[in-house]
Amino acid sequence: MEQIAPRTVKSPKFNRALPGVYLIGAGPGAADLITVRGARILADADIVFYDALIDISMLAWCSGTKLVQVGKRCGAHSSSQHFINKQLVDAARKYSVVVRLKGGDPLIFGRAQEEIDALEKANVRYEIVPGITTALAASAELKQPPTTRELSRTLTLTTLPGRCTHADHKTAIFYMVRDQLSEVATTLIAQGHSADTPVCLMESVSLPVQRSFGCTLNELLLGDIQHHFLDRQPVVVMVGEVYRKKLQTLTPLIDSQIHFNVLQAAS
Amino acid sequence: MEQIAPRTVKSPKFNRALPGVYLIGAGPGAADLITVRGARILADADIVFYDALIDISMLAWCSGTKLVQVGKRCGAHSSSQHFINKQLVDAARKYSVVVRLKGGDPLIFGRAQEEIDALEKANVRYEIVPGITTALAASAELKQPPTTRELSRTLTLTTLPGRCTHADHKTAIFYMVRDQLSEVATTLIAQGHSADTPVCLMESVSLPVQRSFGCTLNELLLGDIQHHFLDRQPVVVMVGEVYRKKLQTLTPLIDSQIHFNVLQAAS
Repeated sequence: MEQIAPRTVKSPKFNRALPGVYLIGAGPGAADLITVRGARILADADIVFYDALIDISMLAWCSGTKLVQVGKRCGAHSSSQHFINKQLVDAARKYSVVVRLKGGDPLIFGRAQEEIDALEKANVRYEIVPGITTALAASAELKQPPTTRELSRTLTLTTLPGRCTHADHKTAIFYMVRDQLSEVATTLIAQGHSADTPVCLMESVSLPVQRSFGCTLNELLLGDIQHHFLDRQPVVVMVGEVYRKKLQTLTPLIDSQIHFNVLQAAS
Repeated sequence: MEQIAPRTVKSPKFNRALPGVYLIGAGPGAADLITVRGARILADADIVFYDALIDISMLAWCSGTKLVQVGKRCGAHSSSQHFINKQLVDAARKYSVVVRLKGGDPLIFGRAQEEIDALEKANVRYEIVPGITTALAASAELKQPPTTRELSRTLTLTTLPGRCTHADHKTAIFYMVRDQLSEVATTLIAQGHSADTPVCLMESVSLPVQRSFGCTLNELLLGDIQHHFLDRQPVVVMVGEVYRKKLQTLTPLIDSQIHFNVLQAAS
């Protein structure tokens, strides 16, 4: 079947966002990796509460909107979750379109349940707009599917260093374990993964400062891990046989110390 | 920190797409759940090869673009993967911006590896644009995070009916198992999941025809499964303790037979 799209059609039509609170996934960082729905609601928003992790260029979608930074950034300043919940409920009573902009997907390791509970308790109308979670954006940047028909038909996303308990060639992607890398390696090896299992690490996925490194589980045990990565930048850790071929194309993690020193000196 | 976005800024600026092949994730179905990057490249495309699963409204992003339907739709017509690979490589030699539009995320259970291999072998420049995978869109529609700090910090995505082997309250989301629902239930129960474990099923996620049902693993064993869902519509199956509260708000799967009969009669 072959056809030509009409030249007159510009883009699907949308109505203005209905009043309410929108939990919107900003995606991994790049401003154009938010969904069209997310960007359009940002343009309609009266007030936006955004995570400190959000890349600031994302806020260019807003126009004349009140912007409030909340949330945390790897160990630095954080608004308490309770206070964020209260701010959302208060804003819903004062403004028409309220946005809570969260990094990645709002429902993947984003503590959205607490915000949802607060909004439901206060009887506030709300919607959730999904976002590209970091694991998928990192896979796209790496050009490597985390699952393939031959090697793995299962993908596990986790924040727990030792939770991927299958050594049967399936793939695990770890979030928020940048300070527990040797724990990830130790546990996976203890659970039966080969010490030779490939690992890809990606920092600041989709942003201009993105860096990626490769190693094996065994190499992940070595070295002074906190010297590999920049302060406060999120890191995603991909583990599995599917990454074997990519490993040859990546900067070895062992060399990241050099990168790190150069970046430190420049900053 | 509080600030106001400047009224003059409209949206971030982007350049025209560079020549090459783009594997773009269309997201779950709704035209505005594609990423901004994906929509902009579609607008620049000379030719688009799209999955039969893509909702046609998505193609409104294209203008004056050659549209070619490829791929398969739950057991119906399918172009062979080998033929799709060849079409992409041939198109890259003839056109500047070639798009391969795939449902969901291109790298999650999308057979992208075969297309990537073909493009690399032919030395064709290509990029991957991630998309909202169905599990995340279904979670947003359900307003239920698949992971919560209390009940589950691990999410497994799989196409294998029996692959989620942990009964420790973690969450599994199954793709492409609509014809193996009783196998999913049998295997999970045999692996130690309680027969009472909550299950949410969602058909045609994010589209106007979206329907969702709830049951327990035990109830998933009963009934004539192929009568629950419409032909060729994709179904996602979410299993885990996190869905316990939602279960009360969903139409019981056991009642879906009535819905099915009404829909059948109307078509």
